[in-house]
Amino acid sequence: MSPHPFDSAIALAEAGEGRWQGQTSSAYANMVGPFGGVTAAQALGAVLRHPALLGEPVAMTVNFASAVADGPFELVATPARTNRSTQHWTVQMLQDGQPVLTGTVFTALRRDTWGAVEHAVPPVARPADVPLAQGPKRVEWVKRYEMRFVEGALPDDWHGQDSGTSLSRLWIRDHPPRPLDFASLTAMADVFFPRIWRRRPVFVPIGTVTMTVYFHAGAAQLAQVGEGYLLGQAQAQAFRDGYFDQTAQLWSEAGDLLATTHQVVYYKE
Amino acid sequence: MSPHPFDSAIALAEAGEGRWQGQTSSAYANMVGPFGGVTAAQALGAVLRHPALLGEPVAMTVNFASAVADGPFELVATPARTNRSTQHWTVQMLQDGQPVLTGTVFTALRRDTWGAVEHAVPPVARPADVPLAQGPKRVEWVKRYEMRFVEGALPDDWHGQDSGTSLSRLWIRDHPPRPLDFASLTAMADVFFPRIWRRRPVFVPIGTVTMTVYFHAGAAQLAQVGEGYLLGQAQAQAFRDGYFDQTAQLWSEAGDLLATTHQVVYYKE
Repeated sequence: MSPHPFDSAIALAEAGEGRWQGQTSSAYANMVGPFGGVTAAQALGAVLRHPALLGEPVAMTVNFASAVADGPFELVATPARTNRSTQHWTVQMLQDGQPVLTGTVFTALRRDTWGAVEHAVPPVARPADVPLAQGPKRVEWVKRYEMRFVEGALPDDWHGQDSGTSLSRLWIRDHPPRPLDFASLTAMADVFFPRIWRRRPVFVPIGTVTMTVYFHAGAAQLAQVGEGYLLGQAQAQAFRDGYFDQTAQLWSEAGDLLATTHQVVYYKE
Repeated sequence: MSPHPFDSAIALAEAGEGRWQGQTSSAYANMVGPFGGVTAAQALGAVLRHPALLGEPVAMTVNFASAVADGPFELVATPARTNRSTQHWTVQMLQDGQPVLTGTVFTALRRDTWGAVEHAVPPVARPADVPLAQGPKRVEWVKRYEMRFVEGALPDDWHGQDSGTSLSRLWIRDHPPRPLDFASLTAMADVFFPRIWRRRPVFVPIGTVTMTVYFHAGAAQLAQVGEGYLLGQAQAQAFRDGYFDQTAQLWSEAGDLLATTHQVVYYKE
């Protein structure tokens, strides 16, 4: 059996202490260069593979410093500070010796405590009752996900009228299905199409400049989700002077909040 | 006229290319060490003072890697990548040669575009109609802010019952008043007391481990706010296994969304 395309995409080869070699995947190509979600997952992978790793990821921020070119890259992960039960990492992805991604990752040994999901999963139809997203798939990476839009699908009429909202909700999982882990959850944090296209359907150029992911679940909980669907919800809070934000949640079908994520996106017009 | 305590707190002395010396401020002392909002503002200050700076801050992430000790620190700000109209920075704060804070900052030349505030300011009473927060001010930094809670003030009865919500809303400004700028806005992104004390009033130990701030306004807009109040709103999305998140907004009195911010906080119990 050949490996899942996501596993092939995030494969890294050791290249010295805290250094890895990887390459962009044509299976996850975006309009120009690779899908940022996979780039973020590759960056996290450099930390997860590091022999000095303590605990599991709790938070990560990646900054897309420059367009990633199709081809090879180098990753450098450094434990900046290691405490008793927590660890702070810096990460860089380099091409031709220049940083194309900068980032930080926080990992920790988690302990059982009182807990609660405060942002409850919205009441929506079950995945089987929501049709698969149809229409042209202009970019390759979109074909690697099964998307079922409950609300706010990619516009098919680019009418340019302000819709008054940028909210989208969709059921999502890898296509073909693959058991959920921190890498695939990181990639799924970036599957939402640009909120400005939803709020005001004009096909303006966009690009994510920074993305933060908070992991609210540990590896055992992710394993329980297995190949199940996640409900993703994304919305912008403000659009101004060439940048907008996106705030998003990813719940399991059982209603557990697995990750919350935020990003800032450049837009031109 | 003596300088405003906030300006004294964030003062830095140049110590070589991209290096600054500063020190924690007793005026902004927390229970242990300094108020994290001022630490974040100091880190941003290293970027804002850098002679190679391009544009204005759009996004920043700071990770509190270790407790900051009262006393001197060093800041190192490095432009990792400079593009035509954007710049990606890495920042570290060091004490005794060890990183106590890691971070990244994204700055850009902003351009006038179509825009909209999607997360509208909630309808609340005007600042003059909301009483000043009373009660004991256990930590020094709280005295440096005028806080007027519309909803969800610090509990005065630590009854331990799950309140079902972690939402707080308050009017806030520096005390004494000071014209708003990126530094003070950054500090105000961290003024919200820990959401777990609101959700379930038990006085558990807490500590912010990472904070991200998205700036939705430029310097000119901040200058227009001047010494006016900001409405701050903060809420957690999930509490689990020793960590919870906080998502927050800061609006001007005129209803402009100036900043959105997120953090992950450690809690013990």
